[in-house]
Amino acid sequence: MQTKEELIRQLRLLKEEAGSHSPSIFTIKEAIPELKVKVDACFLSNPYATDLFLEYFKRELLDTGGLRDLLEFYPSQNRVIAESLSSAIGIHPDNIFIGNGAIEIIQTVIQRYTKSKIVINIPTFSSYYEFINDDVEVVYNKLLKENNYELDIDAYIKLVKKERPDTVVLINPNNPNGGYMDSEKVHHLLRELRDVKNFILDESFIHFAYENEYYDLKTASNLVYKFPNLILVKSMSKDFGIAGIRAGYAVMNSRRVQELLLNGFLWNSNGLSEYFFRLYTRDEFLKEYEQVRVKYIKETQEFIKQLKQIPKIKVYPSMANFALIEILNGESSDDFVFNMLINHGIYLRTCSDKIGLNGEFVRLASRTKDENQYIIECFKKI
Amino acid sequence: MQTKEELIRQLRLLKEEAGSHSPSIFTIKEAIPELKVKVDACFLSNPYATDLFLEYFKRELLDTGGLRDLLEFYPSQNRVIAESLSSAIGIHPDNIFIGNGAIEIIQTVIQRYTKSKIVINIPTFSSYYEFINDDVEVVYNKLLKENNYELDIDAYIKLVKKERPDTVVLINPNNPNGGYMDSEKVHHLLRELRDVKNFILDESFIHFAYENEYYDLKTASNLVYKFPNLILVKSMSKDFGIAGIRAGYAVMNSRRVQELLLNGFLWNSNGLSEYFFRLYTRDEFLKEYEQVRVKYIKETQEFIKQLKQIPKIKVYPSMANFALIEILNGESSDDFVFNMLINHGIYLRTCSDKIGLNGEFVRLASRTKDENQYIIECFKKI
Repeated sequence: MQTKEELIRQLRLLKEEAGSHSPSIFTIKEAIPELKVKVDACFLSNPYATDLFLEYFKRELLDTGGLRDLLEFYPSQNRVIAESLSSAIGIHPDNIFIGNGAIEIIQTVIQRYTKSKIVINIPTFSSYYEFINDDVEVVYNKLLKENNYELDIDAYIKLVKKERPDTVVLINPNNPNGGYMDSEKVHHLLRELRDVKNFILDESFIHFAYENEYYDLKTASNLVYKFPNLILVKSMSKDFGIAGIRAGYAVMNSRRVQELLLNGFLWNSNGLSEYFFRLYTRDEFLKEYEQVRVKYIKETQEFIKQLKQIPKIKVYPSMANFALIEILNGESSDDFVFNMLINHGIYLRTCSDKIGLNGEFVRLASRTKDENQYIIECFKKI
Repeated sequence: MQTKEELIRQLRLLKEEAGSHSPSIFTIKEAIPELKVKVDACFLSNPYATDLFLEYFKRELLDTGGLRDLLEFYPSQNRVIAESLSSAIGIHPDNIFIGNGAIEIIQTVIQRYTKSKIVINIPTFSSYYEFINDDVEVVYNKLLKENNYELDIDAYIKLVKKERPDTVVLINPNNPNGGYMDSEKVHHLLRELRDVKNFILDESFIHFAYENEYYDLKTASNLVYKFPNLILVKSMSKDFGIAGIRAGYAVMNSRRVQELLLNGFLWNSNGLSEYFFRLYTRDEFLKEYEQVRVKYIKETQEFIKQLKQIPKIKVYPSMANFALIEILNGESSDDFVFNMLINHGIYLRTCSDKIGLNGEFVRLASRTKDENQYIIECFKKI
């Protein structure tokens, strides 16, 4: 049995190796098998949607023998999958680019289209500034603690007009705080910033946001026909609970899709992601998915409400499936995360590596109802 | 029931849409459900290895419930998977770059490192010239029909020294003809061409080649320590029969691996490919794999021997899991392929889109013993 200090030393090492991301739960389990992880609350995904996908997978691939085909044969080309996705998202196939996860799209778009200057709000998802080319100037727009890290739209527009970047990045809801801009505000921003060559809007968490009592799903994707500078990035990992299969897409100007497919990205889907994309277009699946989406939103918002009542932490407003939490008991965020993992088996995301945060922060994902309940109980013991 | 002419028209359309590749069997089945495909002999992969992988998959992921984790959670980062692969291929992790299939590596390497001029042997795998940047000069080295499309090493060295490209590409065994250069010749080429900045050696079919009676596996990958210009590309789709999971790797100079990982490619593996790479390092799996590899090689070579006895076709020498076949009965290669599919349910690869071939050619993959036998019978009816 290792001492607690030894465990912390190992965890610190794993974190260092993972850079500005967190080591995966597999990496941790393999490196430190004696750690008993009960809840992976670092991980941002709807577990009920995973259940749903797994049901279909078992019924349609395992029970029929279809799995062999999926493993053995080449998946279809990018364009073919885009065609099948078209009806599900209400976008013409010429405007859809399929990615090996949203991360491939972020990397590609940032490296191909951002040439001079980029404006990035911080805190944010770090790949947006890590993947840019060396000769690109980065302007960080610091979201303010006193605004709960939400975007001040007018100040932002003013900054962009002054800086004249070729690229802006907006994540909506934002990661790591969950701050949300409603669709009116997004439309307003697109109108005001139509001269910016690349308007990257990352909607990877948009399925968790809502603006009415029916939890209707909002997306700005069809604005691509009005604003050709819009590049909408969408991960399927979070809302559909399938990070392991790597599925994402972008909606953008057809000229750009054409350019990208001209010399690459033909076979960047795998058998599982192709299966998923085809499933996504089917009415029965969509109907069932809508149920688990709404169920999860309700539980998540209830979870956040309960968290807010716990002393010695501050919970920031979120319309995503996670909450940014400021630790006010004197512990550093790394220590808080290590202690939660070792003492309670709860794996949180430290935000010590996030630029733009002022204080000790962790990001906490919403999981199943039972897991959320367990997290609440352990947090109360802080 | 559609007429034969109507079916041919549809097939021609699908082929046109797929560009310089062939439509996948799924695309064909979806577009023309009444076509009964019995053997996909377009597809280059060891079916016994697929069986083996499927056995492990069922035992270790389905029967244990591990599948859910694989679908739900993020796979490990590139570097972590490289570390696990290291022992299996006898290469330091610093020299391994994991790809979302070999195709991602080809695209990346060709677009990042090829700046001025590239020498490509034709016929070849078309992505090597399709993915290059517009401003790169392409010099095609035509492999000669009178040499059975095998490389004339001395003439090749002379050409490269005259042209002074920054990149050369060699596929060994070559696709689409299966021509093989033994390891002595590869070493000789690397010695002679050490001044070429990027020496791309694609060994995606190397597991099917052999130089001694034990069918020992040959690879030039460890020559990366002697020749830092070597970029060895390896698909796992063919030898392990798992095209659907998208797994490939490159072995190259550690500086290059570092460069690539510095601003991208962190999470380009999926749960299935990570599972595969970890399986690949296990002794029991490797031992069983070696058996199905040798079994498949023996059957493939027997298949090619039998094909050679069939009149009105010419079978070119191959050390891969396919054969290049010249059609000498007066049919065009497209018509031959369409007729084989419609009349016998055998899907072949037409080579009508391959540059560098002079005549009517198809590429025929080796499949299971029974399927190969069926192909032989149908070919005899030509």
